[in-house]
Amino acid sequence: MTAPDPAPRPQKIPVAVLGPTGYTGLELLEILARHPSMRIELLGSARTPSPRIDAEFPRLIGRLGPGVNAECEPIDHDAIARRCRLAFLCLPHEAAMEHTPPLLSRGVKVVDLSAAYRLRDAGVYEKAYGHHHTDPANLPRAVYGLAELARESLRGAELCANPGCYPTVAALALVPLLKAGLIKPAGIIINAASGVSGAGRQPKPNLHFPEANESYSAYGIGAHRHQPEIGQSLRVYSGRADVPDPLFVPHLLPVERGILETIYAEPAAAAVTTETLQAALQAAYAGEPFVVVRDEAPTLRDAQRTNTAHINARVVHGRVVIIGAEDNLVKGASGQAVQCANLMLGLDETAGLM
Amino acid sequence: MTAPDPAPRPQKIPVAVLGPTGYTGLELLEILARHPSMRIELLGSARTPSPRIDAEFPRLIGRLGPGVNAECEPIDHDAIARRCRLAFLCLPHEAAMEHTPPLLSRGVKVVDLSAAYRLRDAGVYEKAYGHHHTDPANLPRAVYGLAELARESLRGAELCANPGCYPTVAALALVPLLKAGLIKPAGIIINAASGVSGAGRQPKPNLHFPEANESYSAYGIGAHRHQPEIGQSLRVYSGRADVPDPLFVPHLLPVERGILETIYAEPAAAAVTTETLQAALQAAYAGEPFVVVRDEAPTLRDAQRTNTAHINARVVHGRVVIIGAEDNLVKGASGQAVQCANLMLGLDETAGLM
Amino acid sequence: MTAPDPAPRPQKIPVAVLGPTGYTGLELLEILARHPSMRIELLGSARTPSPRIDAEFPRLIGRLGPGVNAECEPIDHDAIARRCRLAFLCLPHEAAMEHTPPLLSRGVKVVDLSAAYRLRDAGVYEKAYGHHHTDPANLPRAVYGLAELARESLRGAELCANPGCYPTVAALALVPLLKAGLIKPAGIIINAASGVSGAGRQPKPNLHFPEANESYSAYGIGAHRHQPEIGQSLRVYSGRADVPDPLFVPHLLPVERGILETIYAEPAAAAVTTETLQAALQAAYAGEPFVVVRDEAPTLRDAQRTNTAHINARVVHGRVVIIGAEDNLVKGASGQAVQCANLMLGLDETAGLM
Amino acid sequence: MTAPDPAPRPQKIPVAVLGPTGYTGLELLEILARHPSMRIELLGSARTPSPRIDAEFPRLIGRLGPGVNAECEPIDHDAIARRCRLAFLCLPHEAAMEHTPPLLSRGVKVVDLSAAYRLRDAGVYEKAYGHHHTDPANLPRAVYGLAELARESLRGAELCANPGCYPTVAALALVPLLKAGLIKPAGIIINAASGVSGAGRQPKPNLHFPEANESYSAYGIGAHRHQPEIGQSLRVYSGRADVPDPLFVPHLLPVERGILETIYAEPAAAAVTTETLQAALQAAYAGEPFVVVRDEAPTLRDAQRTNTAHINARVVHGRVVIIGAEDNLVKGASGQAVQCANLMLGLDETAGLM
Repeated sequence: MTAPDPAPRPQKIPVAVLGPTGYTGLELLEILARHPSMRIELLGSARTPSPRIDAEFPRLIGRLGPGVNAECEPIDHDAIARRCRLAFLCLPHEAAMEHTPPLLSRGVKVVDLSAAYRLRDAGVYEKAYGHHHTDPANLPRAVYGLAELARESLRGAELCANPGCYPTVAALALVPLLKAGLIKPAGIIINAASGVSGAGRQPKPNLHFPEANESYSAYGIGAHRHQPEIGQSLRVYSGRADVPDPLFVPHLLPVERGILETIYAEPAAAAVTTETLQAALQAAYAGEPFVVVRDEAPTLRDAQRTNTAHINARVVHGRVVIIGAEDNLVKGASGQAVQCANLMLGLDETAGLM
Repeated sequence: MTAPDPAPRPQKIPVAVLGPTGYTGLELLEILARHPSMRIELLGSARTPSPRIDAEFPRLIGRLGPGVNAECEPIDHDAIARRCRLAFLCLPHEAAMEHTPPLLSRGVKVVDLSAAYRLRDAGVYEKAYGHHHTDPANLPRAVYGLAELARESLRGAELCANPGCYPTVAALALVPLLKAGLIKPAGIIINAASGVSGAGRQPKPNLHFPEANESYSAYGIGAHRHQPEIGQSLRVYSGRADVPDPLFVPHLLPVERGILETIYAEPAAAAVTTETLQAALQAAYAGEPFVVVRDEAPTLRDAQRTNTAHINARVVHGRVVIIGAEDNLVKGASGQAVQCANLMLGLDETAGLM
Repeated sequence: MTAPDPAPRPQKIPVAVLGPTGYTGLELLEILARHPSMRIELLGSARTPSPRIDAEFPRLIGRLGPGVNAECEPIDHDAIARRCRLAFLCLPHEAAMEHTPPLLSRGVKVVDLSAAYRLRDAGVYEKAYGHHHTDPANLPRAVYGLAELARESLRGAELCANPGCYPTVAALALVPLLKAGLIKPAGIIINAASGVSGAGRQPKPNLHFPEANESYSAYGIGAHRHQPEIGQSLRVYSGRADVPDPLFVPHLLPVERGILETIYAEPAAAAVTTETLQAALQAAYAGEPFVVVRDEAPTLRDAQRTNTAHINARVVHGRVVIIGAEDNLVKGASGQAVQCANLMLGLDETAGLM
Repeated sequence: MTAPDPAPRPQKIPVAVLGPTGYTGLELLEILARHPSMRIELLGSARTPSPRIDAEFPRLIGRLGPGVNAECEPIDHDAIARRCRLAFLCLPHEAAMEHTPPLLSRGVKVVDLSAAYRLRDAGVYEKAYGHHHTDPANLPRAVYGLAELARESLRGAELCANPGCYPTVAALALVPLLKAGLIKPAGIIINAASGVSGAGRQPKPNLHFPEANESYSAYGIGAHRHQPEIGQSLRVYSGRADVPDPLFVPHLLPVERGILETIYAEPAAAAVTTETLQAALQAAYAGEPFVVVRDEAPTLRDAQRTNTAHINARVVHGRVVIIGAEDNLVKGASGQAVQCANLMLGLDETAGLM
């Protein structure tokens, strides 16, 4: 019907997506389908019978890219190693810890979208997630995938722990200000709000449309599993061991996607102004393709369905107030995973993401 | 804190609500709580342990009316008969057929919000609902609760089959036009759209917020269980046995509540005009408190959270197009149930409903 | 069609609603239409030609109560004084300052839903609202309408300044804790979120459906006009002049209505626990019909379309976190206005509101 | 920060977007920004002062592609001719008729997203749109941009009249069935529902969030401007001059985007079955990249944010019922515009659209 593209295409890198039937899986497939340098070689699912991904998500019919097989396969480490250079794991935490070691040992790079390898200390992990960490040996090997703060360590990494959705924009917003000494390390409050896709694809009473629609609520107040992850990022990337875990209060928004965080901190000194805050952020993110420092407060809409985080900081009423926005499924999950994979594979970091 | 109301209140009629933990139950409780002549005496639930209704729905805390016990009780026919004059059944169809006979035999009036007693022919019921009708003996006794079309038979009735949500506005819109001979009985198409509360409170994949939100879809195309109920109403209340079941195509709207039906019919004669249609509707509903004949097409919002059906009819492009709107939980369920109960108990029909 | 109610009804008190074409007006009319002791005698509008309120809001057709004239009239102080005992003003601030003095001087009680008489200091008002206060003489006469904190002064009051939507739940949540000395007066942060109806009925670019839908954003960060009103309430009702204005950061939620505030404060002492906080709130609101102290965090849905505020407080991570929810149009506006009017007219405070 | 892409990129074709500040403009820019063979050379706006497009839509900041100037320019035909090979017109109808002739005469190809050149008969246009057609001379030159039904005439065309949103999926659904003689030409009813973005970016009372949210309504019943466009397409592409304009009844959905049409027709013969209908559709669209014939009814979600139309047809209850879904801003506007431009410029038809 249309003439074949005459120009010989450069060989694309074959990748696997394991656990593609959730929302991060769907988003990842949409990104990979138009990636100029990767192609979806294999979809791996633990479900029996193996689902067709375009029956799960009819919007994918005919949109996975030329030659891509929409039928999932059982997860077979040897097959993945034979056919793919990298695997994205959109699996539950426990399954991620099960499949990562055999993939790594077979030479397959892994970008893990679960929380399995995010926390450097297995004890902190076990406390936050309530189950045993079955692969502590690979924790030191895992690179936390926040490219803007740890780009060099991602180049050539074998295992990437893709950051959590809430921690991504929290770290991007706060680290430069902590590093610059503009805000006090203690007393930080992160009031966050996320779309419902962040809670996953499993139906639950509080996520039933007539309950979640037109509502809004706080949950996991000061007890959410992302709180220690945020604390770790603030300490590691600011280089300040004295930063305690902030108080993190997430809320459920009646929208499909997006995270907006309203962050409160105390200025480190009377000389801290809106201008000094913004200047520190602008200096930190000059040239970054996926962080925009805004002059006004960003909205959720500004960031939705993009891999860009938007940040604005100000001093008001004697406090520092920072607004950060991102898409929880893109910059907060699958977009960032592709950004990390691009670096791990030596590709243009922005490939497939603009 | 506030002075007790000095005026001696007239004794309110005690009623039971069985199965109050669904959306029709919630709506019914909100209506009954401010009803001037009924009070909630008993909440009956088959669940073990018996739930507190204000734990199920925290919005009911302190709002059930003075002295109402928020704790549900197991369904006990003798207790109900001892304490209540009427029971509203917000139960599954099968449970309604189980509890109705013992309640009636104990002298308790029943308003059944399920479909158990709506279809006069048990065979039609069994085909539509896919299970056996276990109480055909009471079918002849059941009065279909469309007060605007069958008011007199409701006064003093013992058993009311409260109409389905979609059939209510469909019958109200079409019966006067059929009776007046303005539209052809065959070829009627009812394109309907309902809010998600119509699908119940049980979480399901297609009702999960991230799926239903921002979406819209047809379902049960020409095969919905309300299709024969609509056909029956059209025949019974127009007095025309020649009206076939219309084609009924419901759709799921991403809203909590409300039904809007766009109905297509053929004019019975060339002389049929917008004016003759509207005049027939106005004549049929003059003085009716809960039906408004509108000069323009009503919106869903016009009818939401009211017991009023809004109807507009026109001839356009050689067709009759009727738009009808109602709230599926009020006029399409619990409001209409109270309207029927008012009539059954000899109260002002509008009590608690304006 | 229905038999007239045989019982002779007690005479209802005639009231006026001025400016009924906005969302607070609509909500007020819905409440008054079913109020047992007030009736809508007169709708006053500055618009020419005078609108019919049920053309503005078709959902009101036939629902305003028996004998109510749906046609608005020009605002005529003498006519109001002749026919009504009380007037609800749902007018712009400036118009409220214009109409209040002539109504009061004619003996009409006034419940003003604008901000005109909320701030005791005309200078603070002028700074917050950016225009001149044209009726400072009546400021000392105005009773701030927070019945739970100032009930006695409302009984028999002539002029009620109905509280702002955000300040209502903020004051209800914080005052008992300040009074009990459980939280520090300084450093309070109120992170609030409101449905779009709070922004009024005038179409604006950021409130256009495709912009506001699926979005979420902060606005008026630390600069909202309700910030000084909240500060005033905290000082007046806690009896502590040392409470500075808190930092108030409102957000726009993609829902029609409801306000949820997530409030952060510092415990006044190490001995402050979740239990002491909750006990103070429970003691403050025991017997109150419109405040519920919850054991868990309330959701927006819990409070929507009710006159009830829901509050929960806890100590977490070394901070006090309070979640308060209300409906911005009911407890935050028109419901509270009726609650105040009930008190001003010597009626049962809960009449029409349960 | 990231290494420059080492591979020399093929020269991209420079294009202009005139009127980029509406929703079709935004969608077009998002598509063009990742198009492999076109680049945004010029944004033309009639507004003064010329807006920055990334101030209008902050989500575009840094996402327009390398070297693209986000500042709009006044519309200058010579500048466009000097710098661009093709212009997309996202302008009002009247402005499109003004700018198209000078652009064509300067050798610039035009894809017009307005309705200016869609109707072949200027008289029909004037009746539908209520204003004079100022460029009838170019009507015969305009190619209606429905690639699936008129691909060859688009290759090399100079002027493309990009189809209306509703007419696109209506024609795709009905033309194959009319051509195959499976449905009767008369009596077709198109019950359609669209997201609010279809109504444009200008705030209006009925599109104000608190009005459109949670509502649903019919509008332009049998009188919408797309009705004659649909009729024209059915006649032209089915080759049957006897097809009257169908009855078209659009509805406003409370979602951002997407169109779902529920189409009713009469089978042409008793032998017409679901299977014959589906077979005709499958035959018509075999190999088409942007039309999917589905075995079950598609949902709005299936098509949103894709350039794919989803279609399902069945015989039920003696009627043909067809469900078609598309995204009004993509396949119904900007995606289809790029599809047409790809053909006009000799590019891969799917470039930038998968």
